[in-house]
Amino acid sequence: MKRLAIGIDMGGTNIRLALVTDDGTIITSARHKTSAQEGKDSVIARLSSAASELIAEGQGHGTVIGVGIGAPGLIENGVVRCSPNLPGWNDVPFQRILGEALALPVILENDANAVAYGEKSTGAGKGLNSLICITLGTGVGGGLILDGKIWRGAFGMAGEVGHIVVEPDGNKCSCGNRGCLETYASATGIVRTARDTVNKGDASWDIGTLTTETLEGAARGGDKAAASLFAGAGRYLGIGIASLLHILNPEAVILGGGVARAWDLFYPSLSEEIKQRCFKEIAERTRILPASLGDNAGILGAARLAFEQSAV
Amino acid sequence: MKRLAIGIDMGGTNIRLALVTDDGTIITSARHKTSAQEGKDSVIARLSSAASELIAEGQGHGTVIGVGIGAPGLIENGVVRCSPNLPGWNDVPFQRILGEALALPVILENDANAVAYGEKSTGAGKGLNSLICITLGTGVGGGLILDGKIWRGAFGMAGEVGHIVVEPDGNKCSCGNRGCLETYASATGIVRTARDTVNKGDASWDIGTLTTETLEGAARGGDKAAASLFAGAGRYLGIGIASLLHILNPEAVILGGGVARAWDLFYPSLSEEIKQRCFKEIAERTRILPASLGDNAGILGAARLAFEQSAV
Repeated sequence: MKRLAIGIDMGGTNIRLALVTDDGTIITSARHKTSAQEGKDSVIARLSSAASELIAEGQGHGTVIGVGIGAPGLIENGVVRCSPNLPGWNDVPFQRILGEALALPVILENDANAVAYGEKSTGAGKGLNSLICITLGTGVGGGLILDGKIWRGAFGMAGEVGHIVVEPDGNKCSCGNRGCLETYASATGIVRTARDTVNKGDASWDIGTLTTETLEGAARGGDKAAASLFAGAGRYLGIGIASLLHILNPEAVILGGGVARAWDLFYPSLSEEIKQRCFKEIAERTRILPASLGDNAGILGAARLAFEQSAV
Repeated sequence: MKRLAIGIDMGGTNIRLALVTDDGTIITSARHKTSAQEGKDSVIARLSSAASELIAEGQGHGTVIGVGIGAPGLIENGVVRCSPNLPGWNDVPFQRILGEALALPVILENDANAVAYGEKSTGAGKGLNSLICITLGTGVGGGLILDGKIWRGAFGMAGEVGHIVVEPDGNKCSCGNRGCLETYASATGIVRTARDTVNKGDASWDIGTLTTETLEGAARGGDKAAASLFAGAGRYLGIGIASLLHILNPEAVILGGGVARAWDLFYPSLSEEIKQRCFKEIAERTRILPASLGDNAGILGAARLAFEQSAV
């Protein structure tokens, strides 16, 4: 019988699920609204029901050995301690609840860690033993793979690379700090810089409709001010990554998320900072790679964790 | 028979050796000049001879099971790839050479990693599973202990916390980069800031005799400009450590080296930065501790590594 797992990527907006084979192939997938505002019991019920459907479907293809789930927030030992994206989820033993509901082994992981593990298992980091995966989305998230395993830290908070300080007296961050990488290199950060550019009179974009997509389009169409926004984000990414490389000396850094689609716009300045700032050996030997699994990284990483848990 | 190991801390200036018991007690120790300028063959011969003496002495106390040695520079698999403090040491298979000369198992480790391992084994980090050890000396060095083990990185360059960027357009660093933590929080960095302070007319210290010791004395004697130098170093240390905590979420950060003796002068501003910049959970739960082994950390860590290698 073919071994199958359910991989789940649970975000503040959507829940995405897939039935995945042992070699990382998605057989079938589903998407539901999270509707977090309806409260956690409602979310858990909807998620259980959606997972049950996939499990039932899986029985036609093989044996479903377990469920892996990546969720946002602080996860410790299968418990959602707290989550900015899931209001009201405090100390929820999500792994146990879901395991009982589905009568299958469930493994709960932080979403950014699941993404990193997906890229390491079947994506851009396949075959690598150490990597840092950075997701450039609404915020800047991260996951660390060291010695082939997720490094979660002493209490599950490792990998918060968006809160590396890249400018000590810089932009105010939603975390309360100043000058976090996230304030420069996330979609939110880039749009904020764009707004500042308009307010200073250096560009005339319509502030109401600014997104990284429109700015990316403008930059590719020859808008120099738009191009310089991505170059600026790339510079700060390069500064943050230079620190990361000196601290951890991984084999690779993998960049994913929506903003990473603008690779050609930010990579030259990122690369220049690394060349200028890092030890020669590090600058020459560390690979900086685009993520390759797109939106499926979290699902595939979560499924992979379920397979590995079942193999223990 | 009591199990004993030789721990060696090899610096650019001095070689320190000790006969160490399994529980981390130093039975006897020795110190020799490195005299690196005489060339590597001469250094290796002197070191072998000094180690042999200690091994012979050890036979009267028990069985010497091996030799651990911490050396500066880039160490990969027992080989000194290169070392700014040991000119001419390029791709030297130091571990094998010393093993053959002493007819004992030898384990070669980067010196900062040996210090971190010493503090983890018998020092301020005893009983901890994850920690970052930062040495504030002429430069700022570091070693990472993750999951109880030294994290060396993909090619032996992890732990270079002195080259975290804390001020993107800041002080020029000897590494070629700008704004490295080392340029603010090392003894060299503090003295440089002191010189700048004199040159700006904000203090009247004798530039020719400035050291962190004299500045520490002045600060304790009520010299506010001197006190603010340490507060400034503490601020940048706090910024660098905030980034480290968000990246690695260790149980503790341990600060050693000569500058760490000025703990009361820099810790308040360090602590304030961490409180301001870190996630609340991290700020509250992470311990920031002074190192407890002083100059013996490297020796004890190296000896510990020898014991553990022999136990495998």
